Amino acid sequence: MEIIEKIQNKSAKIGIIGLGYVGLPLGLEFAGKGFDVIGFDLDEKKIEFIGRGESYIKHIDSERIRKSVTDGKLLAVSDFSKISEMDAIIICVPTPLNEYREPDMSYVESTTKTITEYMRAGQLIVLESTTYPGTTEEILLPLFRNAKSAGDNGFEVGKDFYLAFSPEREDPNNEKYSTSTIPKVIGGVTANCLKAAITLYDQVIIKTVPVSSPKAAEATKLLENIYRSINIALVNELKMVFDRMEIDIWEVIAAASTKPFGFTAFYPGPGLGGHCIPIDPFYLTWKAREYEINTKFIELAGEINTHQPHYVVEKAMEVLNEYKLPLNGSRILILGASYKKDIDDTRESPSLKLIELFIERGARVDYTDPYIPSLPKTRKYNFAMKSIDLTTENIKNYDLLVLSTDHTNFDYKMIVHNAKAILDTRNAFAKNNLKSPTIFKA
Amino acid sequence: MEIIEKIQNKSAKIGIIGLGYVGLPLGLEFAGKGFDVIGFDLDEKKIEFIGRGESYIKHIDSERIRKSVTDGKLLAVSDFSKISEMDAIIICVPTPLNEYREPDMSYVESTTKTITEYMRAGQLIVLESTTYPGTTEEILLPLFRNAKSAGDNGFEVGKDFYLAFSPEREDPNNEKYSTSTIPKVIGGVTANCLKAAITLYDQVIIKTVPVSSPKAAEATKLLENIYRSINIALVNELKMVFDRMEIDIWEVIAAASTKPFGFTAFYPGPGLGGHCIPIDPFYLTWKAREYEINTKFIELAGEINTHQPHYVVEKAMEVLNEYKLPLNGSRILILGASYKKDIDDTRESPSLKLIELFIERGARVDYTDPYIPSLPKTRKYNFAMKSIDLTTENIKNYDLLVLSTDHTNFDYKMIVHNAKAILDTRNAFAKNNLKSPTIFKA
Repeated sequence: MEIIEKIQNKSAKIGIIGLGYVGLPLGLEFAGKGFDVIGFDLDEKKIEFIGRGESYIKHIDSERIRKSVTDGKLLAVSDFSKISEMDAIIICVPTPLNEYREPDMSYVESTTKTITEYMRAGQLIVLESTTYPGTTEEILLPLFRNAKSAGDNGFEVGKDFYLAFSPEREDPNNEKYSTSTIPKVIGGVTANCLKAAITLYDQVIIKTVPVSSPKAAEATKLLENIYRSINIALVNELKMVFDRMEIDIWEVIAAASTKPFGFTAFYPGPGLGGHCIPIDPFYLTWKAREYEINTKFIELAGEINTHQPHYVVEKAMEVLNEYKLPLNGSRILILGASYKKDIDDTRESPSLKLIELFIERGARVDYTDPYIPSLPKTRKYNFAMKSIDLTTENIKNYDLLVLSTDHTNFDYKMIVHNAKAILDTRNAFAKNNLKSPTIFKA
Repeated sequence: MEIIEKIQNKSAKIGIIGLGYVGLPLGLEFAGKGFDVIGFDLDEKKIEFIGRGESYIKHIDSERIRKSVTDGKLLAVSDFSKISEMDAIIICVPTPLNEYREPDMSYVESTTKTITEYMRAGQLIVLESTTYPGTTEEILLPLFRNAKSAGDNGFEVGKDFYLAFSPEREDPNNEKYSTSTIPKVIGGVTANCLKAAITLYDQVIIKTVPVSSPKAAEATKLLENIYRSINIALVNELKMVFDRMEIDIWEVIAAASTKPFGFTAFYPGPGLGGHCIPIDPFYLTWKAREYEINTKFIELAGEINTHQPHYVVEKAMEVLNEYKLPLNGSRILILGASYKKDIDDTRESPSLKLIELFIERGARVDYTDPYIPSLPKTRKYNFAMKSIDLTTENIKNYDLLVLSTDHTNFDYKMIVHNAKAILDTRNAFAKNNLKSPTIFKA
């Protein structure tokens, strides 16, 4: 197979579609190994950033981008006609949910259709976007078979082109693992497809893990994130149960973690955030309906996890009530806007939901986050708020501080000393050995 | 405190109440460290076994018992008046569920009452039985305060006696960890109670983990087993979902397990077994009702896990249907009767439930298990069945073999070669690299 030869002698040109949290680091890996990489994105700002050798993602170093660009190994374009020049094409576009919690496949579908305009015989195409089992063979395969250049007979998969699914496993800010050191699961439509995709990823990933089909690979990614979603929901539920019993869930989790087998700690919080855990599981729920079967655990986890911001607001009202204050008119400062600590990503962040819920109830809300100077407009929210400086004086202006994200560089001691009251959703103050009757947990 | 001195100079006499899977190995640890141990049990057979230096639990070596007994360090009695001679008393009695899935506290309560007849000032009492948060302080504490020898003023806890909860974490057949090498969580009613209990367990356990209260310790054990119950239920649900999609859950779990962080593998099966996972979570469910809150995850896990034997029977009917046979009148052989592999424990074993369900539907059922020569009478079942020899000839007599327990020493190759059809609930044949169109999965 020509594609395998080209990959092995590094003459293969790699196209990455979608230059976000998944596509950009992956493209950098291939460029770093000497491949010519073209990154495709509709977002002209990203193209410009890369052109200047600058990063737009906090945990990705500008220097890596600059080097790949000046070496001539990485080019970012919005001109999709260059697809025809590529040997391997990796699709890393978003797969969000629509407002009815159904898969929004529009990015995958429009990308696939764009590829069919320009694809040529001999190309390898891999989908990395998290999706329901069946997507690769049910959505992508028929479209690629009838690509524009295929003529009336169409392309034969495994012969005229190669198609595989390989789920991304990016974990921003993971100190131990990054793109190249996380094993990669791959399912090919045919044996040749699998072989080509394995050859491709073997160039940059520590270990490739072949599975029997694209749908097995699609299901693998979903299982990983369903597992996380369910276990976070479980401790969120137990948090509420133990709270009634006046038992501290954080103490219980720490104690259970001393069991050297059979237990893995998950922690409660103000709700789910990020681009994976709150979203991915419902791809399976949606697909399962076609098979007349329910995914009860996923539904229950969704119910409990989406309830958490509401639970925090209830707790906030209880705390303010102890101070004889109504929530309506009280001044609230949200600590942290990103969905997890030490990152600059607000996608699906529960902090945004908290701001919305507090505003709806008449509170006067501000937020502070060292990594988010202003709240970006999202599909759901448009708050036009700027981060407040976390100074002694500013803190004193608020009736209640709600810790939503436990950034490492918050000055917890200073905060406790100056806050009238604190509602901690992450056990951050206890972790910093700070105790005070003004600290409450939610 | 006298009790601490006595423990430290090993003159403390240790009483263990309940000589089952928890009490016996714990008593052996103390005896092995030179303490005088008396084991109390109402079951005269266990007393006789120990008297003869013989074990009645497969994974506990008779030699250990024989040595402790001949050294004069371990004595087993049914005479509870000897409680008064003890310095520390550890309660290891069962806490099952009644037929309405409610806690059956009768063993704990009757043991506690028996102790109050004989207890004297200065004793340390520890409960190890898994139970709902609050048990130690709500049930045991008031009874001990008013012990017979306490007189009209009663005993003061932390001064006249010491009371703690420390959950057992036994895991029979765990190759890496046993009683002494598994850290032990301890919650005392008072600081003195905690101190005394820590001193006690520090003699035999690698690491003690103090928590703030008995109820935190009670909750810890429940969290550990709730985590397992929920995760097993999750893969059982996904097994049924993926089965409809013609995806092999076992392949997906194996692939997900290659993620080096954030995923822990659990495996589906024919239902939950053993003395912990199917039972313990409902102790929290029951207690939560008092606080007007539901434990939805536990209920859902219970629903899915208890459905599994029924699912296996449905699958068996489908398999027999492919062979144009009805279940009614078909000959079924269940492979394995214990609740997990390589042990001789049938408590809550799904194999027993399978036998019941198959018999109800008119099947002619036998079982084979190298560790269970005949099925013991339980509170639920009384089958009076003996294990069939797993010979070539015998296998040929059955229309369907249902693998319920994946004992290591089953001759899987021989089984495949001789069975007409196999329903595998543990993926045991695939794990042994055996493939055949006669193997089906459930």
